[in-house]
Amino acid sequence: MIKTNDFMEIMKGRRSIRNYDPTVKISKEEMTEILEEATTAPSSVNAQPWRFLVIDSPEGKEKLAPLASFNQTQVTSSSAVIAVFADMNNDDYLEEIYSKAVELGYMPQEVKDRQIAALTAHFEKLPAQVNRETILIDGGLVSMQLMLTARAHGYDTNPIGGYDKENIAETFGLDKERYVPVMLLSIGKAADEGYASYRLPIDTIAEWK
Amino acid sequence: MIKTNDFMEIMKGRRSIRNYDPTVKISKEEMTEILEEATTAPSSVNAQPWRFLVIDSPEGKEKLAPLASFNQTQVTSSSAVIAVFADMNNDDYLEEIYSKAVELGYMPQEVKDRQIAALTAHFEKLPAQVNRETILIDGGLVSMQLMLTARAHGYDTNPIGGYDKENIAETFGLDKERYVPVMLLSIGKAADEGYASYRLPIDTIAEWK
Repeated sequence: MIKTNDFMEIMKGRRSIRNYDPTVKISKEEMTEILEEATTAPSSVNAQPWRFLVIDSPEGKEKLAPLASFNQTQVTSSSAVIAVFADMNNDDYLEEIYSKAVELGYMPQEVKDRQIAALTAHFEKLPAQVNRETILIDGGLVSMQLMLTARAHGYDTNPIGGYDKENIAETFGLDKERYVPVMLLSIGKAADEGYASYRLPIDTIAEWK
Repeated sequence: MIKTNDFMEIMKGRRSIRNYDPTVKISKEEMTEILEEATTAPSSVNAQPWRFLVIDSPEGKEKLAPLASFNQTQVTSSSAVIAVFADMNNDDYLEEIYSKAVELGYMPQEVKDRQIAALTAHFEKLPAQVNRETILIDGGLVSMQLMLTARAHGYDTNPIGGYDKENIAETFGLDKERYVPVMLLSIGKAADEGYASYRLPIDTIAEWK
């Protein structure tokens, strides 16, 4: 359910929340909605390389806890921790994505054929590290929309980078060569207000050319 | 000026726009506001590694054009192309960021001292590639907010990954070892509606654990 649709309040009012009301669960139905909204994000060649583990069961959280040892409060009190990954085999889904676009009338068949041919050639010679960095950027795009759309639904989040990225995939039965960790995002009903944080002035970080 | 504050419309209505009204310029004042809003995004240890070149002059666009040869329409018709970079020397700004947070009452002095000590030790032993991937993810976060906040101001964007990342920094006088290209974002007043695009169902990309 949408609790607020005020963009500036959603964006500017976002803070990292570490303490949640542990009695609040997010239903699979609402989490699916949140993910549907978040994944309207763009991605390189619309390959949508993001993959999500929604860790919300006691068993899942027990597995996760030792991998996020500095963030136990988030793991235990949140409704869920979403482990965001980027899929190195993102080109596997291009045929499905572009076919559906044709079926839905978003793209003429001949544009699809031309693009699939070009993309197949592109991915064949794409160095693995370039692919990896591209899908990590895409992972950042979708994670940002996930944090914002969570707030529209009345929840807050904490993006977590300091966890055991070496072992997260295998712990949950995923191929670690294929699924590159992006971040953990705890999500739930905030139990406190979090802290404000300072931002550098635009003068320091931007130049006009 | 804020044209719409409807979050779902801003997010779900976003499409990649390649054609812009070339007569519409975005003032430095409004672009600064857009960047201020976008940079409320979170980043790893709040280091804010994002750096922006706002390329909006004829000279700047002339320099950019050969580096974005597949995207001439965006370069020529947009109000600006924002080159987003991630700064490998992001730890240079930590003292400033955390000192300001103390000054503004966001953080007690002793918390700052403890965090700066821990972060200094952390960055000293941080492998360059891990730093690079972290700041690319942060670059994704801020780029997403930039695309959304542009829409709140009545503009549209196109995220561009296919450009000459090898030469973009040096072309604009930046150290290429330090400034890692994230993406180009064209921004301006849309001259057409763009295309809808298909998204994979949540079943395909998410699992509950």
